[in-house]
Amino acid sequence: MFKKILVANRGEIALRVIRTCREMGIKTVAVYSTADADSLHVRFADEAVCIGPPPSSESYLNIPNIISAAEITNADAIHPGYGFLSENAKFSKICAENDIKFIGASPEHIDKMGDKATAKATMKAAGVPCVPGSDGLIPDFQACIKLAKEVGYPVMLKATAGGGGKGMRAVWKEEDLQKAWDSARQEAAASFGNDGMYMEKLIEEPRHIEIQIVGDQTGAACHLSERDCSIQRRHQKLVEETPSPFMTPELREKMGQAAVKAAEYIKYEGAGTVEFLVDKHRNFYFMEMNTRIQVEHPITEQVIDYDLIREQIKVAAGIPILGKNYEPQLHSIECRINAEDPYNGFRPSPGKITSFHAPGGHGVRLDTHCYAGYTIPPYYDSMIAKLITTARTREEAIDKMKRALDEFVIEGIKTTIPFHRALMDNEDFLAGNYTTKFMEDFVLEK
Amino acid sequence: MFKKILVANRGEIALRVIRTCREMGIKTVAVYSTADADSLHVRFADEAVCIGPPPSSESYLNIPNIISAAEITNADAIHPGYGFLSENAKFSKICAENDIKFIGASPEHIDKMGDKATAKATMKAAGVPCVPGSDGLIPDFQACIKLAKEVGYPVMLKATAGGGGKGMRAVWKEEDLQKAWDSARQEAAASFGNDGMYMEKLIEEPRHIEIQIVGDQTGAACHLSERDCSIQRRHQKLVEETPSPFMTPELREKMGQAAVKAAEYIKYEGAGTVEFLVDKHRNFYFMEMNTRIQVEHPITEQVIDYDLIREQIKVAAGIPILGKNYEPQLHSIECRINAEDPYNGFRPSPGKITSFHAPGGHGVRLDTHCYAGYTIPPYYDSMIAKLITTARTREEAIDKMKRALDEFVIEGIKTTIPFHRALMDNEDFLAGNYTTKFMEDFVLEK
Repeated sequence: MFKKILVANRGEIALRVIRTCREMGIKTVAVYSTADADSLHVRFADEAVCIGPPPSSESYLNIPNIISAAEITNADAIHPGYGFLSENAKFSKICAENDIKFIGASPEHIDKMGDKATAKATMKAAGVPCVPGSDGLIPDFQACIKLAKEVGYPVMLKATAGGGGKGMRAVWKEEDLQKAWDSARQEAAASFGNDGMYMEKLIEEPRHIEIQIVGDQTGAACHLSERDCSIQRRHQKLVEETPSPFMTPELREKMGQAAVKAAEYIKYEGAGTVEFLVDKHRNFYFMEMNTRIQVEHPITEQVIDYDLIREQIKVAAGIPILGKNYEPQLHSIECRINAEDPYNGFRPSPGKITSFHAPGGHGVRLDTHCYAGYTIPPYYDSMIAKLITTARTREEAIDKMKRALDEFVIEGIKTTIPFHRALMDNEDFLAGNYTTKFMEDFVLEK
Repeated sequence: MFKKILVANRGEIALRVIRTCREMGIKTVAVYSTADADSLHVRFADEAVCIGPPPSSESYLNIPNIISAAEITNADAIHPGYGFLSENAKFSKICAENDIKFIGASPEHIDKMGDKATAKATMKAAGVPCVPGSDGLIPDFQACIKLAKEVGYPVMLKATAGGGGKGMRAVWKEEDLQKAWDSARQEAAASFGNDGMYMEKLIEEPRHIEIQIVGDQTGAACHLSERDCSIQRRHQKLVEETPSPFMTPELREKMGQAAVKAAEYIKYEGAGTVEFLVDKHRNFYFMEMNTRIQVEHPITEQVIDYDLIREQIKVAAGIPILGKNYEPQLHSIECRINAEDPYNGFRPSPGKITSFHAPGGHGVRLDTHCYAGYTIPPYYDSMIAKLITTARTREEAIDKMKRALDEFVIEGIKTTIPFHRALMDNEDFLAGNYTTKFMEDFVLEK
């Protein structure tokens, strides 16, 4: 087992990793920017090294400074958390070259899954369902008609040079295809000087459902069930839950098998997440694979009673996984509490926390690096706490979340607590009836 | 279901009950003494009624004031928590007479289990093992020899008028009995003017292991496994854990069956605890039955994933229990954090909390009514927080407890955190090798 782990991150995830290291009897090294000198991860680590000023490029993304910190302190492993260098193949490679174990994916796996086209091709080869569509550009309209028939309506025409919705058309039946093809190409030519088009199946009422997997050095992998992360704002997840209210045992079996197949195909080592889009007919399609711990990993921990950071560290040290897929018995929900003003377009609200009171009691978990007197710096992600509730049923988990949100006191800054409290009363959310489009229509009333 | 519950208690248990009521959508009424006006249970309840000044006889034990508070606020039920009026048959009766549901035992059950002799006789009749001994006084030495042979050595001779160890003798073999009999009677006569003696089997290396039970209005009962509460100081529990490190599946089966038999024999309704002494040979003997929720109920909740307060309320409302005995899959430990100076004979240390930071993260639960700025009044129990950790194994639960104790910041008063931290490194505790005598030899080093 490792003797000393350097945690190349900040905020709640740095503290999260340090906690497990302490529990395992492993010494820890915190690294921090000058803006984070008063942060809890610095206080709770055995050693701490300042690696530069903000912005992140000067510190948390500064590979030479982090490697130096590991060498000075004799750390034999680095845990990268999420974000920052956690999916940086170059960093993973440099760690290996310096005889420091990177507690994450190999450079090859990061490269393979980091590039969307390569990832999709790999998954296709592994037999994992991907969003059907054209292989590259569509040569002409005749090919377009043929392809649309194969893929099945509705389809999306997309400009290869596109962005911001320009040169995109949803087509629901063949008789509308010619008009859409012509107008999309014209728009693409006018907008980007390039009328090249490709096609993808249009995913109706899409849900973002991901499968947690763990693979070990023997090539074995298992899945730890799903997380529904469809409540998103501008592709930022706000709330996650497991099980997904949309899940069926059959779909879980199929998605779980697909995710395990994906992991075993590439001989994936460590904790990873295979993200899928699921349509209203419960067809699922590979979106991407994250080769790191996810922000929302605690809800999985709550329902399986395993510590995923401990599992990551064990796998990195060569200990095999248990190799058993998981069937959920409990329900867990996470609300990401951000330092943002939900009444004002979720505008960031950094500053000093003047008063802080954590909710507690049965079924409540809080992961946070914040405390009364802490000043949230303006340079980083606005997430300041993850509030997680767990119970025998979804209804009880929501009841606990409402109660815990009501108890949670953070003064001095604006937070998204009022948004989450309103969401927990929203009829569609209560019914489990939501897609990734949910937030487009959600209005938070004062 | 009840519309409004009055919580006739204070501190963490009042807050605990209010939390579950909120989760169930039941309104709550807090009652408080003038010393508790700033307490969290007052802040989190929907309504609050001041019921008098300290000491407790003027407020938390003042039955007319509490009944008046329930009537003024239209509460249809009262939850008594633990301590105070929770095992007061008169209070239970007055509630019933006033058409207020008492969420606890009936007056008959409280009376039956509150008197030790009646409780023991009832349990004997139910077939639950009790500490063997004489039925009342021993007439003469010949009877004494005969009885000791039946009970089996070692035995305790005890003066019927005794106290403070006077007139008590442990006897390990028959040849020592005459001398012990004579000297104990002489001492009893000299000390109390009464040389009447009775006998009990001496329990060697006793452990305090209790079984949580739940019974419903249909007369059905189930047990929710055990809690080991042997770490005690002057009969005050300090640390509890489940499973007991001394437990075997066979013993759990037997003790669980005995506890369920006890509950079903008296048609017990609600949550209760049957306390046993277990000797080094794993014989177990009924000690007493507590007809209320216990302080240490959270460790059971953590390993079974049920909310016991919710179960209490449901049973009181006439909803049947699940009726399934429980086999533990997880391990949970509770440390009672008291406002006491562990370096100074555990002397109470009331006063103002100047700084408060709660531990959090995976496997950590905190039940407390304290916060930064709160002043602990000198009038009540010194327990200010219950820190509970849960994991797949005992070892991991202890590792989490160490880490959580290290994170826990309470400034302004003395607390027992340093005692618990030292205990978690004690070799005998780590080996699970402890009895109710443990604290007699434990020395906390500075």
